[in-house]
Amino acid sequence: MPLSPLNPALAATFAPPVMEARRWLVGVSFPPERPLLNVSQAAPVDPPPEGLRRAIAEAALDNPAAHLYGPVLGMAELRAEIAAQWSTAYGGTISESQVAITQGCNQAFCAVMATLAGPGDEVLLPTPWYFNHKMWCDMASVRAVPLPTGAGLLPDPEEAAARITPRTKAIVLISPNNPGGAEYPAALVRAFHDLARSRGLALIVDETYRDFDSRTGAPHDLFTDPDWDEAFIHLYSFSKAYRLTGHRVGAIVASPARLAEVEKFLDTVAICPNQLGQIGALWGMRNLAQWVAGERAELLARRAALTEGFGALEGWHLHGCGAYFAWVDHPGRDASPDFARRLVREAGVLLLPGTMFMPEGTEQGDRGLRIAFANVDTAGIAELIRRLATVTP
Amino acid sequence: MPLSPLNPALAATFAPPVMEARRWLVGVSFPPERPLLNVSQAAPVDPPPEGLRRAIAEAALDNPAAHLYGPVLGMAELRAEIAAQWSTAYGGTISESQVAITQGCNQAFCAVMATLAGPGDEVLLPTPWYFNHKMWCDMASVRAVPLPTGAGLLPDPEEAAARITPRTKAIVLISPNNPGGAEYPAALVRAFHDLARSRGLALIVDETYRDFDSRTGAPHDLFTDPDWDEAFIHLYSFSKAYRLTGHRVGAIVASPARLAEVEKFLDTVAICPNQLGQIGALWGMRNLAQWVAGERAELLARRAALTEGFGALEGWHLHGCGAYFAWVDHPGRDASPDFARRLVREAGVLLLPGTMFMPEGTEQGDRGLRIAFANVDTAGIAELIRRLATVTP
Repeated sequence: MPLSPLNPALAATFAPPVMEARRWLVGVSFPPERPLLNVSQAAPVDPPPEGLRRAIAEAALDNPAAHLYGPVLGMAELRAEIAAQWSTAYGGTISESQVAITQGCNQAFCAVMATLAGPGDEVLLPTPWYFNHKMWCDMASVRAVPLPTGAGLLPDPEEAAARITPRTKAIVLISPNNPGGAEYPAALVRAFHDLARSRGLALIVDETYRDFDSRTGAPHDLFTDPDWDEAFIHLYSFSKAYRLTGHRVGAIVASPARLAEVEKFLDTVAICPNQLGQIGALWGMRNLAQWVAGERAELLARRAALTEGFGALEGWHLHGCGAYFAWVDHPGRDASPDFARRLVREAGVLLLPGTMFMPEGTEQGDRGLRIAFANVDTAGIAELIRRLATVTP
Repeated sequence: MPLSPLNPALAATFAPPVMEARRWLVGVSFPPERPLLNVSQAAPVDPPPEGLRRAIAEAALDNPAAHLYGPVLGMAELRAEIAAQWSTAYGGTISESQVAITQGCNQAFCAVMATLAGPGDEVLLPTPWYFNHKMWCDMASVRAVPLPTGAGLLPDPEEAAARITPRTKAIVLISPNNPGGAEYPAALVRAFHDLARSRGLALIVDETYRDFDSRTGAPHDLFTDPDWDEAFIHLYSFSKAYRLTGHRVGAIVASPARLAEVEKFLDTVAICPNQLGQIGALWGMRNLAQWVAGERAELLARRAALTEGFGALEGWHLHGCGAYFAWVDHPGRDASPDFARRLVREAGVLLLPGTMFMPEGTEQGDRGLRIAFANVDTAGIAELIRRLATVTP
């Protein structure tokens, strides 16, 4: 019997891709000499450094406020710390009142989108897109308008301009990109900002993977505009920088007026972000800058290993590689979901097919695969390349 | 300059009432001999018992998985524990696959509603309603249809039946009630279930305050139906039972088919519930039954003190009182928001006016006030009554 009542907007979107891919493992055995290589989700496999774990543990034991409700928009000290550190890092002026904390960056995106676009509205998402962005749009009856990317998986502002309609409310960028790994040049981000602003749209830039950008210095100059908060909305996650995925802490940097609307959404969906995660994030910001620099160096080494490995791999094509992700075309004749499932059985490798990041029927996803390479060390990356080489196209 | 772009559905809903009320405190001084009595939010003021705090702290230090992503629908052990304990408590059969964990019970409600109703659909909410339920409906362009309550703040199934239209998707009950404190009789819950089921609707029962019900035994018999999950959806919160408000852990009990849709929403908005909160909730379920029984006895004593106090208070009328909340009519001529603000200045008491829980222009909210009395002990309740007696109507 079909489920009833059922909101057709929910029914119209797809099942969570990571959970779906995990089900491909059922019934497949992975021998000890060839254990599963899981590069399906951007998920640190080790816990945070001991000092951060200790800070959380001590708060749990000794700080009563760590167990009680906090402000809807997050802990004042954490908001202030972000404002101060971002002002320095981006060379701009950001105040505590322009920062909100969320239960992870996915929630940050949903909260912001809820304030921007309702049923029938449109937003531009470069493809390949992040599937949860598309899922929110589906569930909110917002039309996700695909913006095809070109060389290096970079979107083109002129292509974007051509897709703007009276219903368009926002353009969404992710840099470094999930799923493509592309690091968007500062000038490109600026061009998108100017386009958005001139057309009365919001520009959302999700910088979840910012701490692992191969470039030094600020990745864009938008915060240097005195009135940056008129069009620009910045999203951030603490999950990757400090390995806090299981704590769900993210952030929004936007105008106070935008955050007053965000507060309605967060009050209703979250009440407040959890306290221990915020305490951990704050401790990390104050104590782990050096450690994060080491993590970044390690990820850049993995990136180099992956780039080199694919350079020597016959028939494969690497389109993007940066921060946590690589996007490749496989050499097989199968559609990417079939090829990905073959990789589980024939190579003990779990990754996500490109179709999970593309509108249905798009050619670009047909042979594409996303590799969350940050999850495995350089030895693991060498092993990954060896295994891919053994698979018959 | 007005905020732009702005989703009109967000603009149409109101600011978070608890945060708004908190702003009434600005500029008011509370002398040491008459400190603020805050009965505005259902929020335990003390942390959880030491054993639970220790369990969280130990997990933070020694359990790597406590920092990493978990399943979207929550930790398997916690889902199984709820299934087992609820099966016993309600005398029914609930399996792990019928349980999902959320980032608090507000999120449980939003996730369930997202699967049920979209733009233009309707749901029935007894009034006074819980403001966050109304806010979600506003933001999702769902029409919240007020269902007036009668004696004891109880809704009437016949009144509900008269308000069902082809767009109606669900009826939402909260028992014990927020904001009214009413404990819905089992036969009434059953009558609403039978109505919902016969009309193809879902019946959501939010049982956040269940552990403080004055009645012993199961508060309703819906789970004893072998096919209870066809229409019934149960919501729960760990915030009150174990004082975990700052951890954000709630639960949904529903059909696996419903939870497959819920999973899409939670993956997008949450990815997963935070791990430490789930670890704390599981520890509480396994170790704190006796302690919760003591908490319940204490709350029932506070309830008795409040009932007695209002019995002797001239001009005030107590309409409902149970679990965490009391709903009273004040004796003044002011509208309830004005009277509530006067109480801050003239009595050092912060509570929420009834208008925050009612559709605009409803008479029932005009003189109503919600008191979250569970936050103060019996001495504090005596003090509250003394202060209310001093205020000129």
